[in-house]
Amino acid sequence: MEQADSTTPFIRNAWYVVAEAAEVSRTPMARTVLGTSVMLFRTQGGPVVALANRCCHRSFPLVHGTVDGDTIVCGYHGLRYDTTGQCIEIPMQKSVPASLRVRAFHTAEKGPFVWIWMGERPPAEGDATPHQEWLDHPDWAVRVGYLHVKGSYVHLHENLLDLSHLSFLHAKTFGTPEYARAPVEMNCEGENLEVWRHVHCELPAIYARPLGWTGARAIRSSGSRYVSPGLHVNTGIFRNLDLPEEAQSPQPMVRVAQLVTPESAVTTHYWTAQARNFVTNDAEMGEFMIKAQVEAFREDAFALQQITEMQALSAADGLREVSIPTDKAGVLMRRRLKKLADLEQTMQGTDN
Amino acid sequence: MEQADSTTPFIRNAWYVVAEAAEVSRTPMARTVLGTSVMLFRTQGGPVVALANRCCHRSFPLVHGTVDGDTIVCGYHGLRYDTTGQCIEIPMQKSVPASLRVRAFHTAEKGPFVWIWMGERPPAEGDATPHQEWLDHPDWAVRVGYLHVKGSYVHLHENLLDLSHLSFLHAKTFGTPEYARAPVEMNCEGENLEVWRHVHCELPAIYARPLGWTGARAIRSSGSRYVSPGLHVNTGIFRNLDLPEEAQSPQPMVRVAQLVTPESAVTTHYWTAQARNFVTNDAEMGEFMIKAQVEAFREDAFALQQITEMQALSAADGLREVSIPTDKAGVLMRRRLKKLADLEQTMQGTDN
Amino acid sequence: MEQADSTTPFIRNAWYVVAEAAEVSRTPMARTVLGTSVMLFRTQGGPVVALANRCCHRSFPLVHGTVDGDTIVCGYHGLRYDTTGQCIEIPMQKSVPASLRVRAFHTAEKGPFVWIWMGERPPAEGDATPHQEWLDHPDWAVRVGYLHVKGSYVHLHENLLDLSHLSFLHAKTFGTPEYARAPVEMNCEGENLEVWRHVHCELPAIYARPLGWTGARAIRSSGSRYVSPGLHVNTGIFRNLDLPEEAQSPQPMVRVAQLVTPESAVTTHYWTAQARNFVTNDAEMGEFMIKAQVEAFREDAFALQQITEMQALSAADGLREVSIPTDKAGVLMRRRLKKLADLEQTMQGTDN
Repeated sequence: MEQADSTTPFIRNAWYVVAEAAEVSRTPMARTVLGTSVMLFRTQGGPVVALANRCCHRSFPLVHGTVDGDTIVCGYHGLRYDTTGQCIEIPMQKSVPASLRVRAFHTAEKGPFVWIWMGERPPAEGDATPHQEWLDHPDWAVRVGYLHVKGSYVHLHENLLDLSHLSFLHAKTFGTPEYARAPVEMNCEGENLEVWRHVHCELPAIYARPLGWTGARAIRSSGSRYVSPGLHVNTGIFRNLDLPEEAQSPQPMVRVAQLVTPESAVTTHYWTAQARNFVTNDAEMGEFMIKAQVEAFREDAFALQQITEMQALSAADGLREVSIPTDKAGVLMRRRLKKLADLEQTMQGTDN
Repeated sequence: MEQADSTTPFIRNAWYVVAEAAEVSRTPMARTVLGTSVMLFRTQGGPVVALANRCCHRSFPLVHGTVDGDTIVCGYHGLRYDTTGQCIEIPMQKSVPASLRVRAFHTAEKGPFVWIWMGERPPAEGDATPHQEWLDHPDWAVRVGYLHVKGSYVHLHENLLDLSHLSFLHAKTFGTPEYARAPVEMNCEGENLEVWRHVHCELPAIYARPLGWTGARAIRSSGSRYVSPGLHVNTGIFRNLDLPEEAQSPQPMVRVAQLVTPESAVTTHYWTAQARNFVTNDAEMGEFMIKAQVEAFREDAFALQQITEMQALSAADGLREVSIPTDKAGVLMRRRLKKLADLEQTMQGTDN
Repeated sequence: MEQADSTTPFIRNAWYVVAEAAEVSRTPMARTVLGTSVMLFRTQGGPVVALANRCCHRSFPLVHGTVDGDTIVCGYHGLRYDTTGQCIEIPMQKSVPASLRVRAFHTAEKGPFVWIWMGERPPAEGDATPHQEWLDHPDWAVRVGYLHVKGSYVHLHENLLDLSHLSFLHAKTFGTPEYARAPVEMNCEGENLEVWRHVHCELPAIYARPLGWTGARAIRSSGSRYVSPGLHVNTGIFRNLDLPEEAQSPQPMVRVAQLVTPESAVTTHYWTAQARNFVTNDAEMGEFMIKAQVEAFREDAFALQQITEMQALSAADGLREVSIPTDKAGVLMRRRLKKLADLEQTMQGTDN
């Protein structure tokens, strides 16, 4: 199969969000990422340590241990690990063999998120975290939500890249009927995987209410951009046709970083960071907007779960998907994911 | 193995009840039949449409879509299907490739039930639905019950064909001690698979109470007839030995259509339609009788679930069943199911 | 792999506790042992009968049948079995083929427990139940507790053989910080697999309170002895350094029989019989001690479940354990279990 789906191996040499920065503290926490259980805590100095959660001795999860200074002490037999994953103390003996260690993962804290690199090779110079600057820029107000999705991250990316579904799946939340038939621009040249729709409509409440544009004629330009296996960016630009242009400067926009982290083949951690450049000081309106967005995204989570269950049921019947022109960017994205996964599998093969 | 069991492939070229007629409306509903999820709704004219529930585009269940006239619009991207399963509209484009379609299944509405044909080939002239005329005949009053059975339809048929278990499994409901030892007649010639028992006993309350025969000496003649993979018919004929024959005309009878529809290898939809030719106008007594019957059938459902769990646990130990003479009709029935399944597998093989 | 783990076949030619004596009555009960469902009841004379729970006819569990004299009557079709597992009556026919039978298992009732032998061959002369005499000796007071452990019996034995984990896993219950660093004696010669630790400490409440030694300086000598696949014995000997030796005669001790019975590859029945030679007449203190012990053992059950889940998650990543010197006895024990299992597999192979 040329396109990635839920059976495609994970792409490990990439950055994924593993936690919100505010979640990680001196108390250890665990999270499963790409099928591996990872244990996280902050050192005394602040940086986030990420170790394989499985003690190399008898497989007890380190998360049930105790953080002591910048070390973690296993809660079963007391093996102590430093921040590099090296075991540095076994209470029952004097010395520790150098071979006793667990994997340590690279992390990077950027704005509201902690990123993790699960690959065998360390991140190279070109492997910057795909952090978006507007997530911690003073002109933008940001709110973060989280959903646990019972579906593959591949299908979540595909969902985010083709927003024609807003007219149907989100008909009762932030979609409008005109959406599916609006003109589309696709930019799939080179590295780009970007889709734009320009919709003449009355804005849905999630944007109309904070903008004070309820009932006004507007153009909603919606952009979807695949950035990396762990990140998708959606943008909304709003123009009020009943207001002079100069009254809309800076142009009201929302930018949404969609943090897509595979937990297992068929479950996904889904953080969404919604940034707005209007009513930035209105906390109540910010709360209204993130709640409305998460509420709409629950519909996506529902659809992805239904699709996962249907695909499981249909596997025996010989499941087949049919693609249509609007899927172009999604199909290219899925081919790209497949190629990256294949490449990693090949490289792993040559290493052994 | 010569006899069908829960591992035998389903027999698809046969009629199965998919729903009660009263269940199916203009609002789409889904039901899994022979491992396939089917979506049902009524057209404006009334007939029941049955389509594969999986949208051929991205596998979202059509049941979450919207019925519009005689079409169903997928709730994810708005693909519109007609009653033949052909996709006739994609909102994001002008034309629709003819290849975009989902399977449509033949249905037939007869009396209280809607039947479905899941086979690859259409039902032929000889493939009439095994509808029983007395299910909508004025001399008979009919009540329908439903149980979801966590066991194979093969074992349910076997259970229905040998009622010697009434003395044990149903000792507290509608069985009596004489049942297991009563004389048996088997008719397994040609197409027939029929077993009769004539039991001298005091009738159980389920029949004695509506007949007003409580405490009377009676003969209960019980017949079991395997009709098709989806249907079994049980008959009870009651004779009161303390009453003159002429006072028992027409002879009181119950006829029970047992609608047996595999959902998965180890779960079965089980509708039971109980028809009586006595107290036909007494709704309260009808309610009493169907409740008593469903209550007794819960004991069968319990047994079949226990058997399924026990077989799963015993699979590693090398599960083996031993048959006894009373199983004769059941074993012949299981051989017939196996032969039908084998035949379909062979035909499928030659098609490819 | 040289060491047993959760994937190693069960060792069947050994005695395991199947029930507390007080549990088994004239009413049949079922318990799964080594992956096989066993049905137990007492004959009129008292001895415990253990039969395969699956009726050889149609796999209905015999536990749902009825005990009649010293026989059990299947609750589905009334097949009657004697205490040897032979079917001796089929209500629907006159004779019963000798081949209709279920397996009967040897049992032995000793003190508070009923033992079972699941092996293909009967227990030989050298196969005495590993019953410990102090379990029904007048100098000892015994209390029994039970835990259902979601982990392999192999890991439970390993847990019991190396008590260095008391300082960590049981830090809040009956462990003390000195435990892990205390001197160790290992006796792994010949048949022996025994580990002792002598810990200078203030005794934890579970022992200090009934002894009246709260706050006193003491030596806690802790012994772990692997006896058989189904039994581990732990011993605690307590010396009060603030009291003259003559005031501690007989030396206060607890002996704990750990009855370890695999239910499935990853679940274990775990009975613990705690015997004490002090405050033997104080029922309230006995209750306090067994409750405190079971409470501590819940921490082991938690750890074993966590380990099982972590191993399942890590299987795809290529799970590997690393052992350290304190694991010596545990590793030898796991090798011994592996050897026994291999031997049984080989013998089974030559039988066929």
